Amino acid sequence: MRQSMLLTKTRKDGPKDEVSKNANLLVRAGFIFKEMAGVYSYLPLGLRVMKKIENIIREEMNAIGGLEMKTSIIQTKEVWEKSGRWSDEVVDNWFKTKLKSGADVGLSFTNEEAYANILKQYVSSYKDLPAYPYDFKEIFRNEARSKSGILRGREFSWKALYSFSKNAKEHEAFYEKAAEAYRKIFDRVGIGDRTYKTFASGGTFSKFSHEFQALTDAGEDTIHLDAKKGIAVNKEVYADEILKDLGIKKADLEEKKAIEVGNIFSLGTKFSEPFGLKYKDEKGEEKLVVMGSYGIGLGRLMGTIVEILADDKGLVWPVSIAPFAVHIVELSSDDPAVKKAAEDIYKKLQAARVEVLYDDRDARAGEKFADSDLIGVPLRVVVSEKGLAKKEFEVKERASGNISMLKEKELLDFVAKYQ
Amino acid sequence: MRQSMLLTKTRKDGPKDEVSKNANLLVRAGFIFKEMAGVYSYLPLGLRVMKKIENIIREEMNAIGGLEMKTSIIQTKEVWEKSGRWSDEVVDNWFKTKLKSGADVGLSFTNEEAYANILKQYVSSYKDLPAYPYDFKEIFRNEARSKSGILRGREFSWKALYSFSKNAKEHEAFYEKAAEAYRKIFDRVGIGDRTYKTFASGGTFSKFSHEFQALTDAGEDTIHLDAKKGIAVNKEVYADEILKDLGIKKADLEEKKAIEVGNIFSLGTKFSEPFGLKYKDEKGEEKLVVMGSYGIGLGRLMGTIVEILADDKGLVWPVSIAPFAVHIVELSSDDPAVKKAAEDIYKKLQAARVEVLYDDRDARAGEKFADSDLIGVPLRVVVSEKGLAKKEFEVKERASGNISMLKEKELLDFVAKYQ
Repeated sequence: MRQSMLLTKTRKDGPKDEVSKNANLLVRAGFIFKEMAGVYSYLPLGLRVMKKIENIIREEMNAIGGLEMKTSIIQTKEVWEKSGRWSDEVVDNWFKTKLKSGADVGLSFTNEEAYANILKQYVSSYKDLPAYPYDFKEIFRNEARSKSGILRGREFSWKALYSFSKNAKEHEAFYEKAAEAYRKIFDRVGIGDRTYKTFASGGTFSKFSHEFQALTDAGEDTIHLDAKKGIAVNKEVYADEILKDLGIKKADLEEKKAIEVGNIFSLGTKFSEPFGLKYKDEKGEEKLVVMGSYGIGLGRLMGTIVEILADDKGLVWPVSIAPFAVHIVELSSDDPAVKKAAEDIYKKLQAARVEVLYDDRDARAGEKFADSDLIGVPLRVVVSEKGLAKKEFEVKERASGNISMLKEKELLDFVAKYQ
Repeated sequence: MRQSMLLTKTRKDGPKDEVSKNANLLVRAGFIFKEMAGVYSYLPLGLRVMKKIENIIREEMNAIGGLEMKTSIIQTKEVWEKSGRWSDEVVDNWFKTKLKSGADVGLSFTNEEAYANILKQYVSSYKDLPAYPYDFKEIFRNEARSKSGILRGREFSWKALYSFSKNAKEHEAFYEKAAEAYRKIFDRVGIGDRTYKTFASGGTFSKFSHEFQALTDAGEDTIHLDAKKGIAVNKEVYADEILKDLGIKKADLEEKKAIEVGNIFSLGTKFSEPFGLKYKDEKGEEKLVVMGSYGIGLGRLMGTIVEILADDKGLVWPVSIAPFAVHIVELSSDDPAVKKAAEDIYKKLQAARVEVLYDDRDARAGEKFADSDLIGVPLRVVVSEKGLAKKEFEVKERASGNISMLKEKELLDFVAKYQ
């Protein structure tokens, strides 16, 4: 796409009240617009990144049998009273509102109840199980303060999958598959090397739940990491007895700041019981369905990637989720051949199905380079008078800063391999 | 996909309190789940239809220069006070809620203010215009009653595009392009032949706005149609003087019930004025941006298609938005060759990238046929002992009821052409 048609422009400064690095950079680069603390609109660049993250998650959820649907945001009091989570004394971050009739309704802050209530209608026999429905939806949490940018929003896009299994064994097998899918997701979005499956407390129905914690100093969580074993525990389970159980030595653990980018949780019958979510097994006996939950906040994941990969010049996107793969920067020149060459390589890259942002604006080279660094597209291709004289393009990799001078054919080959 | 893995099942009856045909059929067929009046969750089958509708709209919006983004649902009082639409006395279907701080916030019921506010940050020069941002998002309207199923929801998915033009001329040219794009959308989703661009009142800034009205007895609107000319007016503009202006004779008009499936509206400077949305033209003079709005409710469109195309046996989907193109119905048999043949053609169709629902359940033929009619996939392929004896499949077109007996190769060719 032509940058002149992008709608957004970069800004020198972020919003005055914005203290987080992620939102500051994303606002400055024109990826998001701050509506209020914890509430952001996604501009064209930002939406492109979100859609790519969403598609990676979708592919991995579908690969383990996930079935996409879309639950409503408005939730009824009656449904949430069943689990005891309607009351503001139990859950203090509800957003609630009223119908004209005066009836109270809430905005989804999570999805267990909605799914248990729906599945109740469709599950009656062992033949109906297991089932792994999931959705992407906007989630609302009335946070008292919201100063972490898109890491902790009052409104945010969330993937939640719920597993409905016949018994603990079937549940555990899926739970392991889901953990593996999560690992693939974090690998694919570019933070797998520093994201650790972390033991957390498990609630009534299982000893542990698991968080996926991405190491960064911007993290609000503290974990204890055995880097050699690639295993971590959060502070809830950092106790001698439990560590012994897990075969971890306290001496091998290092304290690290991290962001929780995903969590998986065995729910047992906590929700199937109040909803009467039962099935008849092969012998005709009634049994409670065993549930699990598997969540990823998309905004938080995007924000974490920014916190980890951005540098002092701006954003740095892995190619898998970058808004564009290539940023063509045409340097203004009196020679019309430069514009022609830029247009030409733009069209050739598009024909090769490469996603290209083409800076066709009439602006100074310094401004264009600074904008390109700020936006963080993985490959920058400079079309200049100087390069043209040698029939070469300057190709710079945003992440490493490596520069090469490439002929047209070399460039097309390089980009094809890069994607 | 295998029907045994679909999660949902068909139901004999819709919800007791559901009076609309669209929601009744969609609930019975397992496309949607009723959370409360006017609020529905989309189950896997329903979401597939919605995504296809969304993609058709997205393609047509992108084709006229639309730029997708995603505005937040939570909206601030301050922004809506600028246009005078915050007050419940002006807009009586707001859903509002409060932050912990006590600050009032609203849930988007439309998007003019949100876009004017965002564009204000990015538009300053004639070079920044025109711009055509749009999004798909959940919209909330606190309707006093909600009894039309997904035709009029309290929560619904909505596409809204806003045009930001330099002047009336540029606006009008885009307005016509948008009208043409709407025509293509309604053609592509299968109701173009009975959807009419209808003159409606225009407000302060232009004489007319336009609604796209789809004829059906389920419609809540009344339009006056000149079927020969393919032109219609709504009741607001059904006046001698205006008809004369439009060159329409009252005698040629017929009164018809219809559903408004889209509307386009010239907003002039109604919103750019209160938001101070101005640009400097080529001479350096400050001018107000000229706006237009272009909306389509996705649930309403899906519901309208149901109202128009469904028959007494159930849903009837055009192939462009059908959840699957082909429904394989395997008839139970003692002969294992039947299951083998069904599995085989299922895999071959999938290999040919055809979207197939495969009824692999162990159920009576009558039940399977009734379910297939209710779900409304365009082509039903029956795999039976009888057919297998002749190496043939029975292929029935859901819409016409036409049946043909086809050999495997003929079937694959037929399906390839059908899509």
